[in-house]
Amino acid sequence: MPSPDLAAFVAHAGRLADASGAIVRRYFRTPVVVDDKPDASPVTVADREAETALRALTEAAFPGHGIIGEEFGRVHAEAEYVWVFDPIDGTKAFITGKPLFGTLIALTRRGVPVIGIIDQPVTRERWIGVAGERTRFNGAPVATRPCPGLDRAIINTTSPDLFDAAEGRAFARLARRCKLTQYGGDCYAYGLVASGFLDLVVEAGLKPHDFCALVPVVAGAGGAMADWSGRALDLASDGRVIAAGDPAALGAAVAVLTEA
Amino acid sequence: MPSPDLAAFVAHAGRLADASGAIVRRYFRTPVVVDDKPDASPVTVADREAETALRALTEAAFPGHGIIGEEFGRVHAEAEYVWVFDPIDGTKAFITGKPLFGTLIALTRRGVPVIGIIDQPVTRERWIGVAGERTRFNGAPVATRPCPGLDRAIINTTSPDLFDAAEGRAFARLARRCKLTQYGGDCYAYGLVASGFLDLVVEAGLKPHDFCALVPVVAGAGGAMADWSGRALDLASDGRVIAAGDPAALGAAVAVLTEA
Repeated sequence: MPSPDLAAFVAHAGRLADASGAIVRRYFRTPVVVDDKPDASPVTVADREAETALRALTEAAFPGHGIIGEEFGRVHAEAEYVWVFDPIDGTKAFITGKPLFGTLIALTRRGVPVIGIIDQPVTRERWIGVAGERTRFNGAPVATRPCPGLDRAIINTTSPDLFDAAEGRAFARLARRCKLTQYGGDCYAYGLVASGFLDLVVEAGLKPHDFCALVPVVAGAGGAMADWSGRALDLASDGRVIAAGDPAALGAAVAVLTEA
Repeated sequence: MPSPDLAAFVAHAGRLADASGAIVRRYFRTPVVVDDKPDASPVTVADREAETALRALTEAAFPGHGIIGEEFGRVHAEAEYVWVFDPIDGTKAFITGKPLFGTLIALTRRGVPVIGIIDQPVTRERWIGVAGERTRFNGAPVATRPCPGLDRAIINTTSPDLFDAAEGRAFARLARRCKLTQYGGDCYAYGLVASGFLDLVVEAGLKPHDFCALVPVVAGAGGAMADWSGRALDLASDGRVIAAGDPAALGAAVAVLTEA
């Protein structure tokens, strides 16, 4: 059972996802989203409107907490508890009408993610991960699947363009060892790891608002996340991440990624 | 207005999509789909069960027509009218729980696609294209969007692994000229071209069952499809395909793909 505080924070996180989902759904597949002025683009409007709601609700509920968001930066980031928001993770998917983007809501305690939500507002799918608890998908507990070896693994990455040249070579080396490689998905792919349909997601160039919410979701389903050297992820990580449904596959992936 | 025959064929195609959708939904995200025996794998069971239904319904309704399907090959492929089926286009998406695969149903007349359906049975989204008619998405007419130049285009391909080395270089050359490149999506991406959310899809290695249904969907929304040399697609095409929402972008893409 979570501590009373954590339970209140989980309930708050759920209310946040409800609020952002209502906003993001209004913009999905509207002509306005394909406008691309760099300044006040409708994508930015959707992002900013959702993040504004997430921040306002959180400041009202927990004024002593910090907030890090993709659009509006850091407030009280030195606080014990810091909320981390990405209103639309998977902007390209969002603007092209693919319902595989997501809203990411995380709570970190002393830099470590303890609550994570991956919310897909169009298909109305939500993964909730809480430290010490079983991850839930639309209310039902989920579990990762075992992966007896890399040669049995389905590996996913959103785009080969995430990687610089050295990272791309390392990823290709790992992908060649796996059974199947799949592209696309953004945060949704990490939810599918938690639900036992993917074995590995390997990406680079992520920011804390991209990965903090994923950690409790994957860990609470029996999986593991780390950076490419196998270190646990926190607010200071370098943005190179691995998610593995089977913790043994995490070690195997690190070994291949770090080969000389 | 379609000819009376074509209207009857369109109605039949809709019934086919209803039937295959009911079958495919039963297998989506069931543990059984992740089994991967090469012979009687559950993926194959879902594919075969859906294609069996598609063929049985079609043989009963139009015994003089030909049928080409991914799983069970060709029957009467010399007939004037040939139905072309791919029960699950996007097998990797299907087995990993991403609802961006689709069932493809096409009717060709003398080798030329005249009816196409892209059906996503989980999200219950269906594009219907008919020669000479406006493409419909869940019953409502759709239109592609204009693309004033390649530098404004969002280009999509399911996976860089579709291409051989020369094709990969040609695709990379084209992608560098575009504004954004996105991966994943299979047939669903062609539907998003028809709906005006993507500008280009460029792929290779496709079979007639992968592309015949796409042609009427994209063309009926105001777009265009061709092979990489700009020739119209038919049953004899080589599997290198371009879909463009703006027909002018098709020519521009061919020019870049065929640069020496």
